Amino acid sequence: MIVEGQLLRTIWLAKDGKSVEIIDQTQLPHAFVIRRLQTLAEAAHAIKTMQVRGAPLIGAAAAWGMALATAESADDTNLMQAAAALVATRPTAVNLRWAVERMLQVLQPLPVHLRAEAARNEAERIGEEDIAINHGIGQHGLALLRRLHQQKSAPLNILTHCNAGWLAAVDWGTALAPVYQAFDAGIPLHVWVDETRPRNQGASLTAWELGQHGVAHTVIADNAGGHLMQHGQVDIVIVGADRVTGSGDVCNKIGTYLKALAAFDNHIPFYAAVPSPTIDWNMQDGLREIPIEERDADEVAWLQGCTASGDIVQVNVLPPNSRAANPAFDVTPARLVTGIITERGVCAPNCLKELYA
Amino acid sequence: MIVEGQLLRTIWLAKDGKSVEIIDQTQLPHAFVIRRLQTLAEAAHAIKTMQVRGAPLIGAAAAWGMALATAESADDTNLMQAAAALVATRPTAVNLRWAVERMLQVLQPLPVHLRAEAARNEAERIGEEDIAINHGIGQHGLALLRRLHQQKSAPLNILTHCNAGWLAAVDWGTALAPVYQAFDAGIPLHVWVDETRPRNQGASLTAWELGQHGVAHTVIADNAGGHLMQHGQVDIVIVGADRVTGSGDVCNKIGTYLKALAAFDNHIPFYAAVPSPTIDWNMQDGLREIPIEERDADEVAWLQGCTASGDIVQVNVLPPNSRAANPAFDVTPARLVTGIITERGVCAPNCLKELYA
Repeated sequence: MIVEGQLLRTIWLAKDGKSVEIIDQTQLPHAFVIRRLQTLAEAAHAIKTMQVRGAPLIGAAAAWGMALATAESADDTNLMQAAAALVATRPTAVNLRWAVERMLQVLQPLPVHLRAEAARNEAERIGEEDIAINHGIGQHGLALLRRLHQQKSAPLNILTHCNAGWLAAVDWGTALAPVYQAFDAGIPLHVWVDETRPRNQGASLTAWELGQHGVAHTVIADNAGGHLMQHGQVDIVIVGADRVTGSGDVCNKIGTYLKALAAFDNHIPFYAAVPSPTIDWNMQDGLREIPIEERDADEVAWLQGCTASGDIVQVNVLPPNSRAANPAFDVTPARLVTGIITERGVCAPNCLKELYA
Repeated sequence: MIVEGQLLRTIWLAKDGKSVEIIDQTQLPHAFVIRRLQTLAEAAHAIKTMQVRGAPLIGAAAAWGMALATAESADDTNLMQAAAALVATRPTAVNLRWAVERMLQVLQPLPVHLRAEAARNEAERIGEEDIAINHGIGQHGLALLRRLHQQKSAPLNILTHCNAGWLAAVDWGTALAPVYQAFDAGIPLHVWVDETRPRNQGASLTAWELGQHGVAHTVIADNAGGHLMQHGQVDIVIVGADRVTGSGDVCNKIGTYLKALAAFDNHIPFYAAVPSPTIDWNMQDGLREIPIEERDADEVAWLQGCTASGDIVQVNVLPPNSRAANPAFDVTPARLVTGIITERGVCAPNCLKELYA
C-alpha cells in the first residue's frame, strides 16, 4: 500500500538484511513512526504492546521474531524459549501460535548453521502467502463491487467496522482488499468508517490507511450506521472476522452484530471477508461455542488522542467511581450474513463447506 | 436527586432570592461545579455552551433567563429582546421556544412593577410542572419494572442510551425516572449505560448521576449492547426521546435504532419514556418526516477527558485529513417499540392516540 507516496508493507526485512522494520501502530494516526526490531525481545515487545496487531500481521511478526531469535542463537533450546516467549505475548491469538509452530517445524530438522537463513526465508514466505491470500479475497470482492456498481450510477458507499485493512495484515487486508482493488480499478467509491470504540481502530487505523491511499472516506460514530442505512446511504457492508464457524456464523469486533441487524432490516448486503485459516470447521453454533474475550475495562475508560498543541495523551472519560465492561467481540448469526468472501470465492454462509469441499 | 449526599435539582433560585444556580454539565464527570447566573446574558451563555442541556432543562433554564431579564428591566422592549436572545441560543430546541413564549404570555398583561415577582413564580412553576410530569412517568415505569422483577429472581438489568436522567430535566429525568423510583422502592437493579458517542452523555452524565444516587451501573461502548442482549444480560431497554410521532415512531439520540433492532431480535422489551409535550401529533411517518440535525463533525473528531494528572483536556482522535459526519438523532420505527411510557400511563406505540383521547 501507499504511505506518504511510498509503497509499503506493515513489516519487512531491513536493508541490513538482518533486522526487521515495522510501522508502530500505537502512534497512528497522529504520528507515522517506523521502528526497527533487532532482537527477539524487541519483536515480542512490539506484539505485546500492539505496535503490530491484526491476526495475519501478528502471525507474520511472530515468524520474524523467530527469525531474529534464530540469528541470535539457533540451537534447539533457544528456539524453544523464543517460541514460548512469543506465544505468551498474546495468548489468545490463533495466528501467532500457528506461525511459531510452522517456524519450528521448518527449523528443527535443519543443522544449526543453516537455520538463520532458513528462518528469514520462511518468515518472508509466511508474509508472501498472507499477501497472496488477501489479494485473492480482493479479486473476488472486486467482482462483487463491480456488479454492485453496474446497478448504480453514483459512487458506491461501503461501510466497514474496525480495521481489517492492510495494517491488520502484511498487505491488502481482508475487508479492505476489495475496496483497494475496486479503487485501483477506477470504480468510484466512498467508505463509511465506524470509529470502533473502545479502541478506535476505525478512526485511528482504517481512516489513516484509506487516507494515505487516497480513498474517499468519512468517519462516523458507531451509533450512526443504522441511520445511514435507513436513508439509502450505504450500498454494502464489508467487515473482517476473527473466527467464522463452518456454518457461517461470523465472530468479529464488538458492534458488528448491530450493523448486520441494520443491514438486514434495510435490505443491504452484508459480507465478511475471511481468509480460509479464519474458518473454524469444528464449530457450528457460533453464539454458543465461540468464547468471547472480555478485555480490560480501562480500554473503555481511557483513550488516546492528540491535543491542539500536538501532544499525544491518554484521557479518562468516565466518572471516577463508575466501572466499565469491555466484551471485545460479538457473533453475527449466519442468517444475517449475505455472503463470505474468501480467497477461493464468494459464497452464502451456509455454503462454505461446499466451497472448501 | 442526591449529589454528594445532598438533595439537588439541576437549576434553582439561589438563597439571595434573585440569582439562579445550575450544575455546570460541561465539567462533568470530572468536576462538580455549581455556577451562579445573575443576568440574562449569563443564562443565555449557559444554554448556548451546554452548561445546561436536555430538552426539559433547556426550557426551565430559558424561563429563569426571562426572570433574570425581567429583574434587570421589566419593560416590554427588554422582555422582547430577552426572548429573542434566549431563542437564538439553541434555535432547534422546541422546549426553549415554548418556555419563552409562556413567560411572555404571563408577563405582558401585567403592570411592569409586578412582572419581576411574577416571572420568578412562573419559572418556578415551569420547573415544578416538569418534575410532576417526570414523577408520573416514573410511577408508571415503576409498575412496569415491578412486574418484570416479579418474573425474575435476580436483579433487573436495564439498558439505556444517552442521558435522559435528572440532569436532562429539573429532577427525575424521563428514561431514568422509573429506574430511580424502582431503586428507591428496593427493587434490585443494575443499569448498562451506553457511553453514547460522539458527545458521551452516557459515560459523562448518566454514569455520574446514577453513581451519585448509588444505583449500580456499568458503562459500555455503544457497540456492546447487542452482544449483551444475545447473552441474556439485558431485561429491558428504556430510552428517552426528542420527538415521538402520533404513530409511535421514536426519534432519539443517534444509535437508539441499533439497540431497538437488537432488542427486537432477542425478544427484549424496548420502551421510550416520553413526557406528553414530546409527542408530535402532526407527524405520522417519523422516518420520512422528522428532520435529523447534522451536527458539527468536530464532535466526532474531538472529545474531552481527564488526564492522569487531573487536567481536563480536549483531544483529537482522527487523522488530520480525515473528515467525519455527525447525524445527531435517528428514528426507531414503531414496529420495534414495545411501548411508550408517559405521565398518563404506558401503551403500545400504535395506541398513543387512545391514551390521549
